[in-house]
Amino acid sequence: MNVQILVIFGGTGDLAMRKLLPALYQNRREGALPDGMRIVGVGREGLERNDYLDKVRDALRQFLLATDFDDAQWTTFSSRLEFVQLDALVSADYARLAATLRWQDSRGYIFYLATPSELFIPICTELNRAELVSATSKVVLEKPLGHDLPSAQRINREVGAIFREHQIYRIDHYLGKETVQNLFALRFGNGMFERLWNRDGIRDVQITIAEQVGVEGRGAFYERTGAMRDMVQNHLLQLLCILAMEPPLSLEADAVRDEKLKVLRSLKPLSAADVARQTVRGQYTAGEMHGEPVAGYLDEPDIRADSRTETFVALKVELNNWRWAGVPFYLYTGKRLQSRVAEIVVNFRDVPHSVFGSPATDSRGNRLVIRLQPDESLKLYLMTKAPGDEMTVRPVSLNLEFSSAFSTRRRDAYERLLLDVMRGRLTLFMRGDELDAAWQWVDPVIDAWREQDPPEPYVAGGAGPDAALALLGHGSVAPCDA
Amino acid sequence: MNVQILVIFGGTGDLAMRKLLPALYQNRREGALPDGMRIVGVGREGLERNDYLDKVRDALRQFLLATDFDDAQWTTFSSRLEFVQLDALVSADYARLAATLRWQDSRGYIFYLATPSELFIPICTELNRAELVSATSKVVLEKPLGHDLPSAQRINREVGAIFREHQIYRIDHYLGKETVQNLFALRFGNGMFERLWNRDGIRDVQITIAEQVGVEGRGAFYERTGAMRDMVQNHLLQLLCILAMEPPLSLEADAVRDEKLKVLRSLKPLSAADVARQTVRGQYTAGEMHGEPVAGYLDEPDIRADSRTETFVALKVELNNWRWAGVPFYLYTGKRLQSRVAEIVVNFRDVPHSVFGSPATDSRGNRLVIRLQPDESLKLYLMTKAPGDEMTVRPVSLNLEFSSAFSTRRRDAYERLLLDVMRGRLTLFMRGDELDAAWQWVDPVIDAWREQDPPEPYVAGGAGPDAALALLGHGSVAPCDA
Repeated sequence: MNVQILVIFGGTGDLAMRKLLPALYQNRREGALPDGMRIVGVGREGLERNDYLDKVRDALRQFLLATDFDDAQWTTFSSRLEFVQLDALVSADYARLAATLRWQDSRGYIFYLATPSELFIPICTELNRAELVSATSKVVLEKPLGHDLPSAQRINREVGAIFREHQIYRIDHYLGKETVQNLFALRFGNGMFERLWNRDGIRDVQITIAEQVGVEGRGAFYERTGAMRDMVQNHLLQLLCILAMEPPLSLEADAVRDEKLKVLRSLKPLSAADVARQTVRGQYTAGEMHGEPVAGYLDEPDIRADSRTETFVALKVELNNWRWAGVPFYLYTGKRLQSRVAEIVVNFRDVPHSVFGSPATDSRGNRLVIRLQPDESLKLYLMTKAPGDEMTVRPVSLNLEFSSAFSTRRRDAYERLLLDVMRGRLTLFMRGDELDAAWQWVDPVIDAWREQDPPEPYVAGGAGPDAALALLGHGSVAPCDA
Repeated sequence: MNVQILVIFGGTGDLAMRKLLPALYQNRREGALPDGMRIVGVGREGLERNDYLDKVRDALRQFLLATDFDDAQWTTFSSRLEFVQLDALVSADYARLAATLRWQDSRGYIFYLATPSELFIPICTELNRAELVSATSKVVLEKPLGHDLPSAQRINREVGAIFREHQIYRIDHYLGKETVQNLFALRFGNGMFERLWNRDGIRDVQITIAEQVGVEGRGAFYERTGAMRDMVQNHLLQLLCILAMEPPLSLEADAVRDEKLKVLRSLKPLSAADVARQTVRGQYTAGEMHGEPVAGYLDEPDIRADSRTETFVALKVELNNWRWAGVPFYLYTGKRLQSRVAEIVVNFRDVPHSVFGSPATDSRGNRLVIRLQPDESLKLYLMTKAPGDEMTVRPVSLNLEFSSAFSTRRRDAYERLLLDVMRGRLTLFMRGDELDAAWQWVDPVIDAWREQDPPEPYVAGGAGPDAALALLGHGSVAPCDA
């Protein structure tokens, strides 16, 4: 029988337990996993299969809705689960993995590397040496995909020597979100938006991913990363690509990725002077979240006392192309902000002349707000007449809550993306050249920061650094304040 | 004291009792009537003031919400009410009116002619003869404003010899509706719509006023009128004007009316052949409304057995101008239809190419629905992604219910328009040349119908004549079916 086998490196890690295994459980429960598909967790810990199953069951109980977990489903799901103990850097261990994998004839292995990116090259090399890589294999690479342009290029080159580009799935889970995919439907399914979607119709765009969490015990990782690498280089730039891309010929993977690449290549490079003017970094200080005191970044575990790592970034970005020249895209992201919200605000241009005597618009009218988190919704703010016998205009919003519009359960991003890997659909995964182009734009910004003032402090639980709001043009609305 | 006096001709009639006096009562209750303003009902019946007050009180109790009527408010309101018995065609009666009006020094009389239009010229002539017309007088003319172009021109000319154009308020109560005024706010307050609002962005526009009522005992009047004169010549063409007009310089009366006039003058004249192709008339036959049998038009009182009067009209209209050339405007109106609805549907153009493999849009996506009746609401239909791992697009609607967005009580159209008359605001009233232009376009259509087949029968309580739906272009949605 020609089945697929999914091998999860980092199979006992945080991502596997919180996201990947719950997603696979849900896919199985909904009958979406391919017939006979098996899942092999791989980890350094010396666990028996039963210990691993216990660990997975505990995780499912913790991270799934209580109504989604039941013993019968678990029995079926767990019968597909194996565990192999393996140290990624020990060649001999791969022989053991190979022995386990060859228990049945497989159409192809899917290697999911939920590990630090430093291990991508060693793992792929060893897999290849153990003759586990074939023309039907696939490899899934989790972010961060490298640390800068040279390290990303090295990963692309070395992994690319073992897997062909169409076998490599660089994951950005934001692209698995329903609302993000909905951006395709909105932009390319509605003549009215496509006609407005350019420098004539749009004044500016704000993309915000605000988090309430701090570094959550990942201090050592975060110290080397910071918000720019952790959020901007991938999620925010990917959202920007989908918002700004030219209409692709189709939704076929390379048609879409060609257009996204063009957006990344059109990013206007920021000189050191531009970086000083058009970017704001922040670092949170002690404050309050939900009424509880929380530590400042510098007091978190594993953080250097003089750390200059940014936990907040705001950027004013421009695109050097015909569609968007002169339209600012504002990117905002940070930890320990007052609310958890991911949203895109498209501000349409004002009317050219007010017929009302008074200003026809205010900053809250005439914009589209696409919310990805915590709820998925669309709001179109329009100026309408306020009731009464004067012609006074006032913004109101037309609303769509996806949860009420569609009663179907919404798949988690990882559920969707794992199925796409199994079915060989690459549209929602980044191509190597996209990754390079993103780093190419990001690296000089990070370099320029080294020569500039340290990040601005902002109080945990607040709205971020004051300077970030000043970045916004006249008449705009602060993010998280829609 | 320099007060205004409102004189209502037809003061015991249906319109006064159902609409005008309740509107004035509400205006008083909200403190919107000018200080000391008095209201004089004028009618042929020989009533004492107290009889008239009883009649008005009964009407208010019947046509106002129970919560809006109370005795204290009534006492204050009724203290401003007078009655004068007058036959419009008897000169001597105007002397009695003059004697009553001169009981106090007035800044100006407002003559509201809620009478058949045949009486407009005699009444104005007699008022002038009785020296009741001054530079500060105003006259309000109720529809129908004439019966065809010659009669409308005669009214304009004769009334215009007594009152200056800025003293003449030609009322179309549709223009007093909040949602209709909201069209100004939507179009001219939102850059996004104004950019789409032309032949490039809009495929077609449907304007529907569907009624459930029949001729309601007004058979004699309706026989001479029909749906074209009763609804299209005024309400539907006025809505068309507001939808299609160029942006005015301001909302000052003549700025708006100049632009509306240009729309009326750009109406593509219909030849007899066009009339046969682009218009559908109907006449209702016996059927059911709300589960009760109702009579056909020919069986209503005062209707000729061989009547060819239309109780339904559908028209495909085009505008000969740069903004709208080639965009059909579909006008629909009829009596005894299945639902009571007044709405405007703006169908935006489809995307030029589907990136989804399957058609990107269906007839229900990508349109704006502005509902005037029975509820006031805005819906924007957009294509969005249906949840699930396929990229299938499906229409959903973003909704705004005005009643929930604005808690303020919404003024009835007559409340608003009466206040505008008192304050001398002409923006929402038709100018004489608009009226002429509307008749100029309507008359040849009615003439052509005389030479053609009689109206198509349609069953009361149904969707109107079959041929009316066939008028719609491919892929459109039937009115009343949104």
